[in-house]
Amino acid sequence: MRVTFLGTGAAGGVPLHGCNCPACARARKNRTYVRQPCSALVETSTTRILLDAGLMDLQQHIPATGLDAILLTHYHPDHVQGLFHLRWGVGEKITVWGPPDSEGCADLYRNPGLLSFQTARKFQPIVIGDLRLTPLPMIHSKPTLGYAIEGPDGQRFAYLTDTIGLPPKSSDYLKHWGEFSMALDCSYPPRPAPVNHNDLNMALACIEQVKPTRSWLTHIGHQLDSWLLAQSDSIPLATSIAKDGLVVEIGRK
Amino acid sequence: MRVTFLGTGAAGGVPLHGCNCPACARARKNRTYVRQPCSALVETSTTRILLDAGLMDLQQHIPATGLDAILLTHYHPDHVQGLFHLRWGVGEKITVWGPPDSEGCADLYRNPGLLSFQTARKFQPIVIGDLRLTPLPMIHSKPTLGYAIEGPDGQRFAYLTDTIGLPPKSSDYLKHWGEFSMALDCSYPPRPAPVNHNDLNMALACIEQVKPTRSWLTHIGHQLDSWLLAQSDSIPLATSIAKDGLVVEIGRK
Repeated sequence: MRVTFLGTGAAGGVPLHGCNCPACARARKNRTYVRQPCSALVETSTTRILLDAGLMDLQQHIPATGLDAILLTHYHPDHVQGLFHLRWGVGEKITVWGPPDSEGCADLYRNPGLLSFQTARKFQPIVIGDLRLTPLPMIHSKPTLGYAIEGPDGQRFAYLTDTIGLPPKSSDYLKHWGEFSMALDCSYPPRPAPVNHNDLNMALACIEQVKPTRSWLTHIGHQLDSWLLAQSDSIPLATSIAKDGLVVEIGRK
Repeated sequence: MRVTFLGTGAAGGVPLHGCNCPACARARKNRTYVRQPCSALVETSTTRILLDAGLMDLQQHIPATGLDAILLTHYHPDHVQGLFHLRWGVGEKITVWGPPDSEGCADLYRNPGLLSFQTARKFQPIVIGDLRLTPLPMIHSKPTLGYAIEGPDGQRFAYLTDTIGLPPKSSDYLKHWGEFSMALDCSYPPRPAPVNHNDLNMALACIEQVKPTRSWLTHIGHQLDSWLLAQSDSIPLATSIAKDGLVVEIGRK
């Protein structure tokens, strides 16, 4: 099972308009440090799904052979805005799973075009090709689901954005899931009172709590990138910092 | 007064996902035929405003010296979606004028970030630098305003999207405005019963009605592009078809 981090940025991405902090200045000079809206492609030999749809040039990231589904974590614009133009495409319907959210985002429900919206329910697995995805509730300002994804050979990968901490039931699910890898929201450097998203301390606490074999921080804001740049020594984190374009193979343990 | 047509496409743009019509196929082969979300930059020697904000890479189109304001015709996603990331920028506030619309689009009003939303009222001129913009009501599925723009030397340019026909008062305003140039919504080729947007026949009828000295059709869909491609002879239109990147100088008559 292959995971491609298409975007790893917090809302607004890196660089931000008008910002000259070290992280934004670096990304403006060297595009490999750009962080686009948080999104990932999960592929097996027969199945291909997209996690979140906030990439502005979403159409360019849909392989010629298509997608089996799009799964949304939630309906904030930075996670769905690529659907605003994709929906007007032609051809086969694209199934879009998302959490129960009567609002959705703007007029997506009213004018779905090519998209077929389906409601994902917490802890009720969805089977798409040879992937099995279990929606896990997150803690955020809009109804939000993470996804615990199992591949055909028992590979396990949890994709957990956007969230601040983990609800006990989601945490319990992961603790009893067996060996798994994980991508986790970490928008901010350590700060006194983070809201809506993990800061680094909370992300590390989540990792300590559910003990994935490997983990990547994603949904990263410019302040965290700047903070990391300012650390004189590399931090011995029990996790990796994801980067746009990073491809990881999730193997069976 | 200089007008740059940054985008000239209908919702979804050209090419559309999954579409192999002659216009979409052509745009995929040759990027000069791509139509991005409908948007224009209006500049004088001292003032710079953006009309609509649907460009996905909006930040790239904001000059280093900034913008004096953004004016929205309406709050459909293809006219505002670039604001979803721009708002998280830092620095001076950006004033965004738009029609009275209690919904706006998604959470833009709730989380405006860098943006300062102001309400434009029909026929009540807004002065921005050396530009004077009079909002004209349009006919569309959401509250929509066109803008009659006057430059410092009496140059006049009307930007009229999205609309199907023109309300009598807007039409009367233009008839008594003196000599002016105009950009006009023309989403479709001739069709029996267009909705929400002009087809070519209605656009030509509007032009005949208000008699601009020059006009450009914009907000163009792939079907109109394909229809134009299929005409064996070039059509002697009393108007031009706008193109992404087209720059026109609006002189004083």
